[in-house]
Amino acid sequence: MADYIAPLEDMNFVLNHLVDLDALAQLPGYEDLSTELADSILQEAGKLASNVLSPLNAPGDKAGVHIHGDAEVATPSGFSEAYSQFVDSGWGSLQFDTDFGGQGLPFALAIPVQEMWHAANMAWGLCPLLSQGAIEAIEVNASQELKARYLPNMIDGRWSGTMNLTEPHAGSDMATLRTRAERQGDHYRIFGQKIYITWGEHDMADNVVHLVLARLPDGPPGVKGLSLFLVPKFLANDDGSIGQRNDLRVLSVEHKIGVHASPTCVMSYGENEGAIGYLVGQEHRGMACMFSMMNNARLTVGLQGVSIAERAYQLARDHAKDRPQGIAPGESSIGPIIKHPDVRRMLMTMRALTEASRAVAYVACSSVDLRNKHPDPEQRAHHDARAALLTPVVKGWCTEIGPEVASIGVQVHGGMGYVEETGAGQYYRDSRILPIYEGTNGIQSIDLAERKTRFDNGRAVDSLIVDMRAVIEQGLQGDEKVCRMAQQFAASVDALDEVKNLLLTRPDDDIYFSGSASFNYLLMMGVVCGGWQMLRATIAANGEQGRLPFFANKIKVAQFYMDSVLPRYLSYAAAINAGSESTMALAEGDF
Amino acid sequence: MADYIAPLEDMNFVLNHLVDLDALAQLPGYEDLSTELADSILQEAGKLASNVLSPLNAPGDKAGVHIHGDAEVATPSGFSEAYSQFVDSGWGSLQFDTDFGGQGLPFALAIPVQEMWHAANMAWGLCPLLSQGAIEAIEVNASQELKARYLPNMIDGRWSGTMNLTEPHAGSDMATLRTRAERQGDHYRIFGQKIYITWGEHDMADNVVHLVLARLPDGPPGVKGLSLFLVPKFLANDDGSIGQRNDLRVLSVEHKIGVHASPTCVMSYGENEGAIGYLVGQEHRGMACMFSMMNNARLTVGLQGVSIAERAYQLARDHAKDRPQGIAPGESSIGPIIKHPDVRRMLMTMRALTEASRAVAYVACSSVDLRNKHPDPEQRAHHDARAALLTPVVKGWCTEIGPEVASIGVQVHGGMGYVEETGAGQYYRDSRILPIYEGTNGIQSIDLAERKTRFDNGRAVDSLIVDMRAVIEQGLQGDEKVCRMAQQFAASVDALDEVKNLLLTRPDDDIYFSGSASFNYLLMMGVVCGGWQMLRATIAANGEQGRLPFFANKIKVAQFYMDSVLPRYLSYAAAINAGSESTMALAEGDF
Repeated sequence: MADYIAPLEDMNFVLNHLVDLDALAQLPGYEDLSTELADSILQEAGKLASNVLSPLNAPGDKAGVHIHGDAEVATPSGFSEAYSQFVDSGWGSLQFDTDFGGQGLPFALAIPVQEMWHAANMAWGLCPLLSQGAIEAIEVNASQELKARYLPNMIDGRWSGTMNLTEPHAGSDMATLRTRAERQGDHYRIFGQKIYITWGEHDMADNVVHLVLARLPDGPPGVKGLSLFLVPKFLANDDGSIGQRNDLRVLSVEHKIGVHASPTCVMSYGENEGAIGYLVGQEHRGMACMFSMMNNARLTVGLQGVSIAERAYQLARDHAKDRPQGIAPGESSIGPIIKHPDVRRMLMTMRALTEASRAVAYVACSSVDLRNKHPDPEQRAHHDARAALLTPVVKGWCTEIGPEVASIGVQVHGGMGYVEETGAGQYYRDSRILPIYEGTNGIQSIDLAERKTRFDNGRAVDSLIVDMRAVIEQGLQGDEKVCRMAQQFAASVDALDEVKNLLLTRPDDDIYFSGSASFNYLLMMGVVCGGWQMLRATIAANGEQGRLPFFANKIKVAQFYMDSVLPRYLSYAAAINAGSESTMALAEGDF
Repeated sequence: MADYIAPLEDMNFVLNHLVDLDALAQLPGYEDLSTELADSILQEAGKLASNVLSPLNAPGDKAGVHIHGDAEVATPSGFSEAYSQFVDSGWGSLQFDTDFGGQGLPFALAIPVQEMWHAANMAWGLCPLLSQGAIEAIEVNASQELKARYLPNMIDGRWSGTMNLTEPHAGSDMATLRTRAERQGDHYRIFGQKIYITWGEHDMADNVVHLVLARLPDGPPGVKGLSLFLVPKFLANDDGSIGQRNDLRVLSVEHKIGVHASPTCVMSYGENEGAIGYLVGQEHRGMACMFSMMNNARLTVGLQGVSIAERAYQLARDHAKDRPQGIAPGESSIGPIIKHPDVRRMLMTMRALTEASRAVAYVACSSVDLRNKHPDPEQRAHHDARAALLTPVVKGWCTEIGPEVASIGVQVHGGMGYVEETGAGQYYRDSRILPIYEGTNGIQSIDLAERKTRFDNGRAVDSLIVDMRAVIEQGLQGDEKVCRMAQQFAASVDALDEVKNLLLTRPDDDIYFSGSASFNYLLMMGVVCGGWQMLRATIAANGEQGRLPFFANKIKVAQFYMDSVLPRYLSYAAAINAGSESTMALAEGDF
């Protein structure tokens, strides 16, 4: 099984030409940022990904995780050492607050680095991913005292973090959470059970800091009665060292389709005197605090779709170049299967989806930086709206792409693809979690159709469409090839505009419309955003074609995207335009 | 985990209204066939599927198969007993030749029965599926003496059958097979290794009869030098009883993504004196003999897609009705997730795909009966061409639907879907083999675009389109609803016609066109065929609406198909019409 090689050329291209790293470098605090710095960071991260994390991926899948002794979780051989190496090299702290030991780099730069971790070893990568979310929630919402006590160890990675939302009876619906908190002096006591806690217990970090949604006795019912608590496995002493063991433990780990090396824990809080917890943010404002961690986590989970697509592409490509089989059109002897047009179609589809989703994800993440740091409040507001709009698109669309590309990867391998030894199957299994966790893609699509479109009166979508049409204008002034691609893309933007108008103008009494249209709307928005970035990429690459084969290839992949991927919008639009009637026609009892 | 219930109402509807069971009953040899007989056979089969096979499905997946002792394969607990029950009740012999103990029922009736086996337990069902293929190849090609000696035990199921094509270096490409045969008196000696031999060795049947493609020393190179041999695990004595052990054995079983309970064997022939084999058909005509078994096996594998889609739908539907979560539009309190429009969209997509693919598969299989039995040679020729055309469509399209529906089924379950315990994951894993085996869907698509369309000068497609347009005419004379559905469908048929013309008129020097267009062409043909059958179903159900809720529901599902599934043809057509240039633009070395 081939190991993963970070696609540095494409990553740098997206950073330099689509994200506009130069613009980020002008933001206060990012002055040190440069193309060269970015490149050297990516190169170093690529080494850890290829040499350390990637070789552990297949063995980790095979070994899985196991509970032993007194509720300890043993991770696969080598995982803990790899994690120490990651911590020692400072990889965990890239984008975090320099006040607490972070390196203060832009999120947009941490993103390609994280893409590598997940491509190399998604199960392992989930540990820092969850830590990142917990750190962000603490950074934004916790008291200075709590930050000072917990953040430095979390930011340097010696302590990991988790998010505890789900309970057995409450998956997507937080309103019915039952875990309870009781006030006790300067802290709280937490009692309850949480499920699906990714890396809830393990042996890679010295401490696990849980963020737990729980309900105070006097809180209002529903989501408005939830508060967020920091509940560490070990309490931190005043000097930040490990203190008393808290009253929480892992009860079991799930047997899952994939990400076998990532412990998905059932956690129990307060079986005895109650787990000590510290309030993060205000009482009864837990959901708002949770969202501050979930939004970026959603972007990162979307990125995992890109990661696994890249990895699956690399494996399939290597196989297609290696495997002799059949005489392709125009050939006189047996050659590698990459010569067959249908295999080319598969590889091009994989590659075009991967490159387009990478570009969309990175660009969305750069809006997070611009929202946080831009000196101009208008620009901050603009990027706040843009990041909010693109978050469900990145989470939803890119995580549909991950499993799709992984599945094509299995297919490229033929019968060997179905045999676990090949490795393609692991990506197929691993990637299937992506459309589910961190808010199912159904939830994402409703967020996009309702909050981010209808309740926003279409403003953020309109602004996106304005940007897209500016790129079209630019493309129409290019050479014949670029001009044709701009025309192909323009048709999809017009269709998106129409669908958005339909969402806005649909009478309120068609209560099922946005819910039944939303998933197709999300996919349509995703595939059109992909076209947007591929057209931008084409325009950027067009001037540089002679310089490196990379640029000419980028345009070829973009052309394939316009020809064979973008037209998906046609079927999404048709389904949306058909309305909700047939979706809702069958009575519940008739299913 | 809910057990499988055979969808008898839909199966009977398809048989009676779309397949035209009455017409089959007029074929010579099928005189006993009636709606009532069909219904009672389906009911009985449904009991075995629900009560015996289905409960073994999840435990079988968990247990897998293991080699022990002297190259014996142990199947999961209960599998062997279930198989004995299947044999004792005569289920293996339904559609086979009465001369050798078969029951002589139409293939079209054996098909719903087989759908049940695969829905209940696909891993188990692969054993009779492979036997069926072997029996057909022997029926059509073997000498009377060989038939008399081997068929009775195979038809009654006490002996199972396999097909041995693939070798480690030759997957889809048979031209380079190396297994060799040597003449020795009235038989042959076989030497070589075969891989991916489904149910190649096991403990459910008393004997395993292998059909093996091998090369005689004086044969021409390539596929024209292959001959087909019957190579039994135990030779049959003159009285049909078990004789001498043959020189063949299983070397290993694969560790696969799914169908864990189906042994996928590496088989070794002739490690000592050579495995005794008997020629099936003529020397050097092995490929033709193999195809006589592969065509029907392809239809049955397509049917497995329907099976797993049905099973996944049932599980997801039950979960959606059960699981309370969130307040749906128009509701005032928390209700089951089936109330949410996006969950409805998922369930309707699952159901529409399942029903449409079932109809297409059954109708295609009825053409096999009509080809075999119709007294009118013109009708035989018509159905020969129709079966040939629809075989890659059923194999390709229905096996894309299986994994798609299984994946939606995982999604309906949310986080629980990713946990193996729920069962949805098994269908996701099991179904992934379907687009690969029995000729990858890439191979199917090239068969469709080249042999079945271009080399046929479009005649079979034209005849299909004539039939489709006749249904449209009928629909346009119906009520407003049917008329609108006929219009929706008509647009897709026009697009199919155009694409077919493009395939026929494309200059020969565009050597990559059909290969790069073929997969989209297959999917387009599939989704349009689904529309054809859903429109026929609507017309049939329209008169009966008042009689049973089933008929009204059928029309609702068909309307959803027209609104939300059929429009996929738009994106397939766009990709085909874009030509092969961008698919082939990237040089091999640039991947």
